Amino acid sequence: MTAPLAVVLVSGGLDSCVAAALAHRHHRLAFLHLNYRQRTEARELAAFNALADFFQIDHRLVVDVSYMRQIGGSSLIDLDMAVPTQERSDQIPTTYVPFRNANILGIGVAWAEVLQARPVFIGAHQADNQYPDCRASFFAAYNAAIAQGTNPDSGIEVRTPLIDLDKGGIIRLGLSLQAPLHLTWSCYQSQQKACGQCLSCRLRLQGFAQAGVKDPAPYAATAPR
Amino acid sequence: MTAPLAVVLVSGGLDSCVAAALAHRHHRLAFLHLNYRQRTEARELAAFNALADFFQIDHRLVVDVSYMRQIGGSSLIDLDMAVPTQERSDQIPTTYVPFRNANILGIGVAWAEVLQARPVFIGAHQADNQYPDCRASFFAAYNAAIAQGTNPDSGIEVRTPLIDLDKGGIIRLGLSLQAPLHLTWSCYQSQQKACGQCLSCRLRLQGFAQAGVKDPAPYAATAPR
Repeated sequence: MTAPLAVVLVSGGLDSCVAAALAHRHHRLAFLHLNYRQRTEARELAAFNALADFFQIDHRLVVDVSYMRQIGGSSLIDLDMAVPTQERSDQIPTTYVPFRNANILGIGVAWAEVLQARPVFIGAHQADNQYPDCRASFFAAYNAAIAQGTNPDSGIEVRTPLIDLDKGGIIRLGLSLQAPLHLTWSCYQSQQKACGQCLSCRLRLQGFAQAGVKDPAPYAATAPR
Repeated sequence: MTAPLAVVLVSGGLDSCVAAALAHRHHRLAFLHLNYRQRTEARELAAFNALADFFQIDHRLVVDVSYMRQIGGSSLIDLDMAVPTQERSDQIPTTYVPFRNANILGIGVAWAEVLQARPVFIGAHQADNQYPDCRASFFAAYNAAIAQGTNPDSGIEVRTPLIDLDKGGIIRLGLSLQAPLHLTWSCYQSQQKACGQCLSCRLRLQGFAQAGVKDPAPYAATAPR
């Protein structure tokens, strides 16, 4: 019997790599990458393709969602805004793209309906939970909308297997699954060597420190370690 | 006091014209048009701009969602599929783009959050209700997802003021609001003169017949009237 098909949202970062490794245990996979022309897109796309090669993925879809640049409101896509380096506070950070997960899941669900895939995996987790659309309550509500808004036979649902893990836990899980963490890219700022200073680098470095292993990514000489 | 801002999804067809006329009574408007490179996009965009000029709209956003062509699955965007001319049956029609409303509402909600607009108007109505994502139950579920997935202060919600109307009722409402129905375009097949035969033309012609007024749109000589 052929394994059922699942769509995985793969940015090229650690979280989506581990989500893919988990999904790979029981599904054939279709990899979806969203290009919203953020600063580091070329490097993230390279990571996406390296991960897709690793998992031997035939179904690959790269979607240009650069309309998010037109809408603006985030330092990830508005090149005039500074990328924050400070620790998180109680504010919604400026890297927030409004309702981004709803937008990217909408694409994933549409593709899943065409492919007759059922689960749509996304590597959202608790370290992202200052973003309203990264929380379990949002995904539950979105799944209710999918049930109403797709063909009744589709059985599509979003799965967030990392939702309760922190970055250290995700890395430990990835190591236990032999996920190719060395192929991932996280830095928001640079594409050659990671800056080590942006929020994404800091979370990644903290995660590897928590997991007690060395991060295989290359860092700039000026990066704090 | 300045009227509050609302986003209106404006395809250029009858329904969005009447939805805009309704929204215009109590809101300043921002007009959003989605270009998914359907057969008749150029004509629909001309109608969008004519409507935006009529309502003197400053906030206009045209978003390329041609990724829907990559995903496929609909005769509206797959130029190799025939556009259906038959009456509706119990099947989901081939003009269905999977989860389209979730995708376009995701864009509308993101823009609303940046603009600090609250309502997002869409002209969905009962004649569309073979499409799972055109039903009141879907919009209710989607609003619950918006409440979970946006900034808690945003207060954004989707409104579907035409949901219980048929095409004749929408046209009568439009006439009562002095909506510029003469600026709209509905045909899925042609851009110069409406074919009168595609599903969208048939519904439009039925609607004007129900309302007892002449359709101001130009029709091909071969069109059934």
